[in-house]
Amino acid sequence: TRQYRITLLPGDGIGPEILTVTVDILKLIGTQLDIDFQFQEALIGGSAIDETGEPLPDQTLKMCRNSDAVLLAAIGGYKWDNLPREKRPETGLLAIRAGLNLFANLRPATILPQLIDASSLKPDIVRGVDIMVVRELTGGIYFGEPKGIFETETGEKRGVNTMAYTESEIDRIAKVAFETAQKRTGKLCSVDKANVLDVSQLWRDRVTLMAEQYPDVELSHLYVDNAAMQLVREPLQFDTIVTGNLFGDILSDAAAMLTGSIGMLPSASLGLEKPGLFEPVHGSAPDIAGQDKANPLAQVLSAAMMLRYGLNEAKAATKLEKAVLEALAQGYRTGDIMSQGMKSVGCKAMGEVLLRI
Amino acid sequence: TRQYRITLLPGDGIGPEILTVTVDILKLIGTQLDIDFQFQEALIGGSAIDETGEPLPDQTLKMCRNSDAVLLAAIGGYKWDNLPREKRPETGLLAIRAGLNLFANLRPATILPQLIDASSLKPDIVRGVDIMVVRELTGGIYFGEPKGIFETETGEKRGVNTMAYTESEIDRIAKVAFETAQKRTGKLCSVDKANVLDVSQLWRDRVTLMAEQYPDVELSHLYVDNAAMQLVREPLQFDTIVTGNLFGDILSDAAAMLTGSIGMLPSASLGLEKPGLFEPVHGSAPDIAGQDKANPLAQVLSAAMMLRYGLNEAKAATKLEKAVLEALAQGYRTGDIMSQGMKSVGCKAMGEVLLRI
Ligand SMILES: CC(C)[C@H](C(=O)O)[C@@H](O)C(=O)O
Ligand SMILES: CC(C)[C@H](C(=O)O)[C@@H](O)C(=O)O
Repeated sequence: TRQYRITLLPGDGIGPEILTVTVDILKLIGTQLDIDFQFQEALIGGSAIDETGEPLPDQTLKMCRNSDAVLLAAIGGYKWDNLPREKRPETGLLAIRAGLNLFANLRPATILPQLIDASSLKPDIVRGVDIMVVRELTGGIYFGEPKGIFETETGEKRGVNTMAYTESEIDRIAKVAFETAQKRTGKLCSVDKANVLDVSQLWRDRVTLMAEQYPDVELSHLYVDNAAMQLVREPLQFDTIVTGNLFGDILSDAAAMLTGSIGMLPSASLGLEKPGLFEPVHGSAPDIAGQDKANPLAQVLSAAMMLRYGLNEAKAATKLEKAVLEALAQGYRTGDIMSQGMKSVGCKAMGEVLLRI
Repeated sequence: TRQYRITLLPGDGIGPEILTVTVDILKLIGTQLDIDFQFQEALIGGSAIDETGEPLPDQTLKMCRNSDAVLLAAIGGYKWDNLPREKRPETGLLAIRAGLNLFANLRPATILPQLIDASSLKPDIVRGVDIMVVRELTGGIYFGEPKGIFETETGEKRGVNTMAYTESEIDRIAKVAFETAQKRTGKLCSVDKANVLDVSQLWRDRVTLMAEQYPDVELSHLYVDNAAMQLVREPLQFDTIVTGNLFGDILSDAAAMLTGSIGMLPSASLGLEKPGLFEPVHGSAPDIAGQDKANPLAQVLSAAMMLRYGLNEAKAATKLEKAVLEALAQGYRTGDIMSQGMKSVGCKAMGEVLLRI
C-alpha cells in the first residue's frame, strides 16, 4: 500500500461541491489500486477570511507543507471583492504559490472531440488542439519589487509594479518547459516581448542558451501580441508554450477558451519538491454555488494531474481520465457543457456516473 | 481650399507599395473636395538605419512635428532583427510615439460582412463585431524606469522593467476613452489586473472616478486574463475597451485577429495636439515586399482615420471608407483575403479599382 497525505482546500463558491465528488472517486480508485489517501481539510480564500481574517492562515500553509499534494477547488466571490487587497481571496492564492515555491504552472488546453461544438472557433480550426502552457508562477510582475502606490514630487499618485526575472528563475522554468516538450511532440514556443522589454531580452537569451542542451526540442520564439493572435488564428501550430507569470496568465486563459469548455480544464503548480498544488482553471462560480449545478470534471482532472505529476501514480491518473472521457461518451453533461440530445445531470449525479464507470 | 502638410513614412517591406496607392487616392479626393495635401517623405525603421544609422533620425521627427498629420506604412524585417535594441526598427516606432506625445492609440476591430468567412471564429460569434480598443501608448511598462539588465549581489543577471502610471497619465487616456465610447454605443470596458497589480488598482480607481462625469457611459471592468477569454468567447459583448500599453498591445492584436483579416485594419495614435500618426495594424511583410502582392486597404483606411481624427475631414474620410467597401462589394481581393469566386488583384490593381470608384 502506498500512503499519501492530501490536503484538501475547498475554498469558496462551488469549491466544496466539486471537491466532494472528486474525493469520492479518489477513494474508490485508492481501494482498486491499493493506494491509501489520507485527506485533511484546510481553509483558504474567502471562507478563510470569514473564519480567521486571513486569506491564507498559517495553519493552512503548515498543513500543506506537511503533505504529499494539495488539491484546491476554487476561491473568491462578490462578497470579498471590495476588501483591501491584502485581505482578498486572490491574495491567499498568491501566498500559497509563493509559500510552497510553486514556480511551474502547467495548464493544458485540450479539445475533446465530444465537446468540439462548445468552441466559438470553427471545428476545423480547433479539432485536435492539445496545448500545454508552462507558466512561471512565483516571479515576474506578480512579485517584483518595488511595488505600490507612491506620491510623486508634484504630489500626484503613481502606481508601480516591477517585472523582473533573474537568470536562475528563467533557467528553472525553462528546464521544466523543455522536459515537458520532450515528453510531448518536441515543439516548444517561448513567448516574450523582447522587442520592447529588457526582462524579455534576458528571458529569450537564457531560453535560447538552454536549447543547446535539448537538441531534440524544436524551439521557437513569439512576441506576446503575436502569440495572442496566433492562438486565435491557428492554434494547431502550438504544442508546448513557455512564458512568464503575467503573459502566462493571459495566454493560458485565451488558450483555455479556445476549447469553449473551461469547466473541463485542470492545472498543476509544481516546485522542485513536493507538495504540488492542483486546481481547476475555472473560478468559484458564486452564482451557482450550492445548487448542485457545477461541473466537477475539471476538479476530477486536476486530481488526475495530481496523481500523474505530483505522486507519480500514472496508472491511477489514466483511470480517472478515462472515466471522465467515458462519462462524456455516454452522453452525460452538466449545464455548462449541455447540448442537444445529451443527458443533463447535476454535480452529484455526474460524480455517481464516474463512480459507476 | 484647406491645406494640410502630411509627412509620409514609407518605412520597410511592403510599406512603400501600400503608401503609394494611398497617396494617389488622397490626391484624387483632394481634387474632388478641394483639399490641398502637401506631402513630404521621411525615413523611419530599417531603411532609416541603413541610411543614417538611426531608426528615427532627428530630421524625421522635426519634419513630423512640422506637419498636420503623419501617415506611416510599416517597419521592420529579418535583416535588422539581430541588431542591439537601440538600433532596431521597433525602437524608431517607440521613439516617434514618445517624441510626438501620442498617448492615445485607437485600434478598431471591425468585421466586414464580405470577409466574415476569413475569421477562424464561427460566423454567428463574429457577425457584427465592432470593437474599438483605446490603448495608452506612451507610458506603462514600455517606458517605465528603472529598466535594464543588472547584476545581482550573487553575480547573476536580473532583467527589470517597470510598469507605472501616474494619475494624470491615466486620466488623459480615460478621457479619450469615455469620449470615444460616448460617440459609439456608450459602453466602455476598462481592462486591468487590479487583483494583483498596484498600478492597476490606481488605474481602476481613476477610471471609476472619471465615470461620474460621464453618466451616459456604462462602465465595466475586466481583469486582463478574463478579457482575453471573453474576446474569444463572445466578442459581441464589447464596444469600447480602454487599457494600458502592454495589455492594449496584446488585446488589440487578439481583437484584430477575430476578424481574420488583419490586412484590413487601420489605427490612429493621437496626442493632445497635431500631428497624429496613422498606420495599418499589420506589419511590413518582408516575405512579399516588392512583389505587388500586398493588401493596401489597411493603409487606405488608416488615411481615412487620419482624415477623420487627425484633420477633422469627416466627409473625405467617409468617401475613402466607402470606396474600400465598394471595392470589396465588387469582388476585388488581394491574396491575403482571396476566396472562391472573387477577383484576385495585386496591390497596384486594387489601387486602380479604388481610383475608379
Ligand atoms: C486569481 C488570480 C490572482 C490568478 C492569477 O492571476 O494568477 C488567476 O487568474 C490564475 O490564473 O490562477
Ligand atoms: C513593434 C512593437 C514595438 C509594437 C508595440 O508593441 O507597441 C507593435 O506590436 C504595435 O502594437 O504597434
